[in-house]
Amino acid sequence: MAFNEGDFVLIEYDLWVKDTGSLIDTTSEEKAKEAGIYDPRERYGPRLVIVGEGRLIRGLEEAIRELDVGKEVEVEIPPEKAFGKRDPSKIKVYPRTEFLKHGIVPEPNKVVEIDGKPAIIRSVTGGRVIVDFNHPLAGRTVKARIKAVKKLESVDEKVKYLILRRLPPMIGSQDVNVKYDAQSKTAKVIFNEKILNVNDAEIVKRIVVEEIKRYILEVDKVVFEENIVLRR
Amino acid sequence: MAFNEGDFVLIEYDLWVKDTGSLIDTTSEEKAKEAGIYDPRERYGPRLVIVGEGRLIRGLEEAIRELDVGKEVEVEIPPEKAFGKRDPSKIKVYPRTEFLKHGIVPEPNKVVEIDGKPAIIRSVTGGRVIVDFNHPLAGRTVKARIKAVKKLESVDEKVKYLILRRLPPMIGSQDVNVKYDAQSKTAKVIFNEKILNVNDAEIVKRIVVEEIKRYILEVDKVVFEENIVLRR
Repeated sequence: MAFNEGDFVLIEYDLWVKDTGSLIDTTSEEKAKEAGIYDPRERYGPRLVIVGEGRLIRGLEEAIRELDVGKEVEVEIPPEKAFGKRDPSKIKVYPRTEFLKHGIVPEPNKVVEIDGKPAIIRSVTGGRVIVDFNHPLAGRTVKARIKAVKKLESVDEKVKYLILRRLPPMIGSQDVNVKYDAQSKTAKVIFNEKILNVNDAEIVKRIVVEEIKRYILEVDKVVFEENIVLRR
Repeated sequence: MAFNEGDFVLIEYDLWVKDTGSLIDTTSEEKAKEAGIYDPRERYGPRLVIVGEGRLIRGLEEAIRELDVGKEVEVEIPPEKAFGKRDPSKIKVYPRTEFLKHGIVPEPNKVVEIDGKPAIIRSVTGGRVIVDFNHPLAGRTVKARIKAVKKLESVDEKVKYLILRRLPPMIGSQDVNVKYDAQSKTAKVIFNEKILNVNDAEIVKRIVVEEIKRYILEVDKVVFEENIVLRR
């Protein structure tokens, strides 16, 4: 039956380079650790995807649209629906002296930043340095294993996952509670004292409020409540 | 009768250099503008002082202790109770070339930073630059006019002023409400949607929670509530 635009779906996926088999991204903490791509700032476990939101590479988005809850698929994604084709005009030649002037010794495979853009040095021959501004995965066909774990139906769950995906993983699922009151059309988001440690929580709330406004049309009001116990 | 350690007092004051009469600090927006020291990031109007907290220069703190509500005094504060005595060992000589090496042309009265410390250039003679690391107001006797406007008695007011003094002035008094429930010993701080624009609000809350814990002993729990209207 597939999903519709605006559906809130929890997804598990692994993404790897077809040629080399090397893992690019995964929702599994265990697999990330095995592959040496574990990032402690990342929240692992099923990830919220809002169908049509466009935060994932296009090939993944399209595959998710065709899924059903509980279904798992493996898809092959061509470069143009992944990280783009390789663009030869993004390969440039610089004189070696230009790097030395900035205190950088140019070496193959070194990642550099030129005029604010990240790039990788492909080769150094005599005085010529060949620099590649393409995305490191440009031109690669990738493969993905995707599973739809759950479709979120209640406002409580939708708001909770919108919040959690923007907060650092130190805020666990048990640290956020959402209660929606249909009569007053109010979603109340209840935090414990851990939220005080999230320095940019206010920015997160601002983003989430905009997302609720766009994607959860029945909500008219959001209340954030933070409960801090000083003394017991 | 004077104030006691830990009292919450709203104070109006002007502080100026005795010799020159030039205004250093004031709680009056109008006077700050007249004197050309107005700072839009500052909250003007009566300022919360917790007696004994030590956030003001010592001479001001001592004068406030002796005040009563409604009373206004003018006091003279010697350097050691204001911005410190001038310390001759904080005046140093550097070669002019040292500045030029860092791309700075040394000129008298220029404010510079050397090893992370602010300083002012006093003179440039030949190749010698005399640099003064003393506080710009060190050695100055200052005068203050101070008035105690109100002593805060209720938890509601105390918590409200603790919050407001840490927030930018775009959050007005009407944007924060505090309700203390004596039975549950809970102080509820209620914000409207403006709080979402304060990026470091969570840091402010963390500081205020610590201050409530230290200075308002009857409060056991703090609840921050932020009310955001998406649609009317």
